[in-house]
Amino acid sequence: MTRVPEPLLPPIVIDDFRPRTPSGAFPAKVVEGEPVRVSADIYTDGHDELRAVARIHLATGPGSATWAEHPMTAVGNDRWEAVVTFDRAGRHEVVVEAWVDLEATWARDARIMLDAGQEPPPRRSDHVAPTGRHSTGGPHPVWVDRPRAVAGAWYELFPRSEGGFAGTAERLVEVAAMGFDVVYLPPVHPIGRTQRKGPDNTLAAGPGDPGSPWAIGGPEGGHTAVHPDLGTLDDFDRLVARARQLGLEIALDYALQCSPDHPWVSEHPAWFHHRADGSIAHAANPPKQYQDIYPLDFWPSDEAERRGLWQACREIVEFWVSHGVRIFLVDNPHTKPMAFWAWLIPAVQSLHPDVLFLSEAFTRPKVMVKLAEVGFSQSYTYFTWRRTKAELTSYVTELTSEPLVDHFRPAFWPNTPDILAGPLRGGNLAAFRLRLLLAATLVPTYGIYSGFELGENQPRSEHDEEYAHSEKYEIKARDWSAADSLAPFITEVNRARRAHPALRSLRNIAFCDSANDLVLAYARWSDDLADVVLVVVNLDPDGVQEDTVWLDLERLGLPARTPFVAYDELRGETYSWVGAAQYVRLDPAVGPGHLLHLRPVR
Amino acid sequence: MTRVPEPLLPPIVIDDFRPRTPSGAFPAKVVEGEPVRVSADIYTDGHDELRAVARIHLATGPGSATWAEHPMTAVGNDRWEAVVTFDRAGRHEVVVEAWVDLEATWARDARIMLDAGQEPPPRRSDHVAPTGRHSTGGPHPVWVDRPRAVAGAWYELFPRSEGGFAGTAERLVEVAAMGFDVVYLPPVHPIGRTQRKGPDNTLAAGPGDPGSPWAIGGPEGGHTAVHPDLGTLDDFDRLVARARQLGLEIALDYALQCSPDHPWVSEHPAWFHHRADGSIAHAANPPKQYQDIYPLDFWPSDEAERRGLWQACREIVEFWVSHGVRIFLVDNPHTKPMAFWAWLIPAVQSLHPDVLFLSEAFTRPKVMVKLAEVGFSQSYTYFTWRRTKAELTSYVTELTSEPLVDHFRPAFWPNTPDILAGPLRGGNLAAFRLRLLLAATLVPTYGIYSGFELGENQPRSEHDEEYAHSEKYEIKARDWSAADSLAPFITEVNRARRAHPALRSLRNIAFCDSANDLVLAYARWSDDLADVVLVVVNLDPDGVQEDTVWLDLERLGLPARTPFVAYDELRGETYSWVGAAQYVRLDPAVGPGHLLHLRPVR
Repeated sequence: MTRVPEPLLPPIVIDDFRPRTPSGAFPAKVVEGEPVRVSADIYTDGHDELRAVARIHLATGPGSATWAEHPMTAVGNDRWEAVVTFDRAGRHEVVVEAWVDLEATWARDARIMLDAGQEPPPRRSDHVAPTGRHSTGGPHPVWVDRPRAVAGAWYELFPRSEGGFAGTAERLVEVAAMGFDVVYLPPVHPIGRTQRKGPDNTLAAGPGDPGSPWAIGGPEGGHTAVHPDLGTLDDFDRLVARARQLGLEIALDYALQCSPDHPWVSEHPAWFHHRADGSIAHAANPPKQYQDIYPLDFWPSDEAERRGLWQACREIVEFWVSHGVRIFLVDNPHTKPMAFWAWLIPAVQSLHPDVLFLSEAFTRPKVMVKLAEVGFSQSYTYFTWRRTKAELTSYVTELTSEPLVDHFRPAFWPNTPDILAGPLRGGNLAAFRLRLLLAATLVPTYGIYSGFELGENQPRSEHDEEYAHSEKYEIKARDWSAADSLAPFITEVNRARRAHPALRSLRNIAFCDSANDLVLAYARWSDDLADVVLVVVNLDPDGVQEDTVWLDLERLGLPARTPFVAYDELRGETYSWVGAAQYVRLDPAVGPGHLLHLRPVR
Repeated sequence: MTRVPEPLLPPIVIDDFRPRTPSGAFPAKVVEGEPVRVSADIYTDGHDELRAVARIHLATGPGSATWAEHPMTAVGNDRWEAVVTFDRAGRHEVVVEAWVDLEATWARDARIMLDAGQEPPPRRSDHVAPTGRHSTGGPHPVWVDRPRAVAGAWYELFPRSEGGFAGTAERLVEVAAMGFDVVYLPPVHPIGRTQRKGPDNTLAAGPGDPGSPWAIGGPEGGHTAVHPDLGTLDDFDRLVARARQLGLEIALDYALQCSPDHPWVSEHPAWFHHRADGSIAHAANPPKQYQDIYPLDFWPSDEAERRGLWQACREIVEFWVSHGVRIFLVDNPHTKPMAFWAWLIPAVQSLHPDVLFLSEAFTRPKVMVKLAEVGFSQSYTYFTWRRTKAELTSYVTELTSEPLVDHFRPAFWPNTPDILAGPLRGGNLAAFRLRLLLAATLVPTYGIYSGFELGENQPRSEHDEEYAHSEKYEIKARDWSAADSLAPFITEVNRARRAHPALRSLRNIAFCDSANDLVLAYARWSDDLADVVLVVVNLDPDGVQEDTVWLDLERLGLPARTPFVAYDELRGETYSWVGAAQYVRLDPAVGPGHLLHLRPVR
């Protein structure tokens, strides 16, 4: 019965470290240059004075031996924190160290005892503190991204509708002029012939039908080839270079599936699912059948084949990275194993910490969040289906609060090639304007699919969210010079986004009290309060709405009783406001709302 | 650059297992016989049918090879659960297993395809599901206590005021008659002479002063000896046996500190803190000085001494366990290392799974909760300082919700020898009745310190919460036969507690809407809804209060429009009620409120 007691815990408790992901098993995410609150519960038994520091280093590479030390301060309720800024992308580790400070304990007690007329013990022979107790917590992993992981304006276009890579390079001038940061291209690879889809997803393609870009692979090659109709790989390289000249980045679709004509089908049959007769099975979610696509089997029974497939998928990314691509929009990641992403993304980012992966998943909530936890830099969201004041307030509050804010970076897309939803279905231009203003100002990343600015609003049917004559199956010609194009409006919104750091942080947002359910108002601000923005949106595209919006002036660093300035970035008008209650009148014929820069009178 | 891809995650995600403690590093706690919801998020990529089971075994001892298997069911939002009952105290482990069910997937798809006029693939050569994917989560530790860990009525008394062990054995008859389950004794060990405290905590004890029982140890022995004035160890054994006869359990104080006369002081000087001159330091929290107590140094610089001290502390517990004690009330556990408790409690319980430890800590919230997480079976609470309707509602809701409900078992004590607080200070008997009714019915464990039933209400001063003429420093004589004793009222409350399983579960409580801030109403129920209790308390000891209380009849399994029975356990009256809104009129001269058994008409 003699057991030697070994402590399971260190002398000082260090608990509940933040930032962290829900399971704690993956790195929390932050961005370069953004102040981050690093915190933990720290306490011990007795009354001794504690000290704590957060030590941080880049976990890999030549700089990893250097640890920066940040003193932590007690902020109440046994919580300690330090505000730190990570200045380099890559995997970091944070170690929290805490110890009993014998000197400080003695000094504090001596002062109290002298005040009480007692005789303090001699210095440093303190009778309260035993030998200096010391604990270490961590290392806690933190992944640092470049800022584009959190903030950016995206524009999606089909290169084949713009005249291939060369035509797209020309179109980029206009996209850049609208103020976008990222241009996202659907797959640019050869498209299969077998079971090619016709217009509107019909089963029989005519000889001139181009097929779906997501039916990847043909005799010309697979995921590392480009479709001959778009140009050559050199043309693609020129497109990437032109984008860079214009201050744009090219994001590429990463869709891990194959047409029946993909080279892998003959070279690696073990990477696909097989029927009883040995033939390869196409994708299906009965009764839906996707005859033009073979899904990959990420768990082939032969372990060597599994490793081969996973490595081949990684090499696709490496290939496009070598051609200057740093952002990958991952098609339907929820239909591939979570384990695959948990391996692939860190494997790529360990060599290329500036590479970003966007999860293009519209699926169940737990799955959406887990994809972010295991490594996705950014995620599609339910924004498209959140329309009322209550829905938007609740959803954005969830996205900008712990635990999500520490690892899930939302992207708000009013439309995509797959989704024409809500007020945009048959909607007027006012509906398009209001959804864009919401998307562009509620969170730091938003995107539109081309045609949005022309108010394209025709659904394929009442029953699904597809577009009529979807660009996924045919080539579109559009008149970008249309008189009622929303391009000038979008340009103004993007200009305001670039002018205001408040609109590029995910953390600082507060919804304003107001009585009218068709008016949504929210304030956003930079960490130092040097920049404060108020957005007031009319959720009704068809009617004038009036309301009184209540501002939390103290939180926004604005005076309670003297005037402050409200400058409307969209209308170019300046108001002098006094007090927390502000009346607004929003006419959809004039615009979707206010985008106001608030500042004290200088 | 060739890296062999190894999956970090299994094919099926198993996440967020419950029950669990906040850090996940310690066992969650349940009790024998109580239905427990075991749950996890379980999902995988694609559309295949999943199956999941929870496998459970006792982790130690001869039964550990036997695993019980409980099928889990999907309850929405990717959550799966099984309701299980643990029937034996001790450390258990729960493993969650999930797998893709190829047969079920095939059957589901075949049915859908046939309905859609498609031809399904042959059975078991399913083209959607690859080789049977399979994942395991855990093992997750769960500690199972006997029910007394959660539910019980406690009575604290000083044996020296009752005539030692023999007199206490007689007094137990009355305590048992009042319906208590546990009798808790302050330390029964020899008391030091050096620096002994006099009445009211004065520094100079007179020759007849008995000193504080917490100044443990004298020439007669230390923590494993009994004070000669109380009787012999045989007398103590007889007291334990008598308690058992009466259906009572003896709980012993476990106070790890020594008087200057404790044998350890000379035998193990290294276990104490030393001043510069080599002398041993008394306890202090400047300017407060506790001259009659030497605290132990749980981290002596010599590791062998640390092990010796920790082992000796454990042997104290083992000694009293060998004398029939199974509950230890731990004095000020927050002044000893968390690491010590994280080692001691499982070490004792691994041999004696029926032993319970109550944390007698009134300290900061994070520390209170962590003591429970590392192993304490039950915990003192802030009940004494929660008095208003809002405070009580919010506090009890926190205690009965995740994450606390999975590891922290609250004990509500209206008074203790250290604390005379709130409405009891100079309060009338109505105040005592209302605080008792709250404590006895808000959570399953409550306790009083003797004298409560006599309405002892005199504080030592306006500035502290001590009693005048505290029993901690002197022997008290009381007239238990006083005409206005609350003993009959307490007896009725304890009888109702024993009659109603609803009052012995920590999980099922709902506060009722009502307009009057001085009326608190709450329903409690057994898991199977076979027992439903409604408590309505007048928080005003001085005036009549009226209110309309709203019941959630659907949740309580009661009819919405036809009569149901409300039987008042305290007044012995039966009412026929109809509907959710019930008017109450509460006169403190009649009683503190209603304790109603609600049931459908049979």
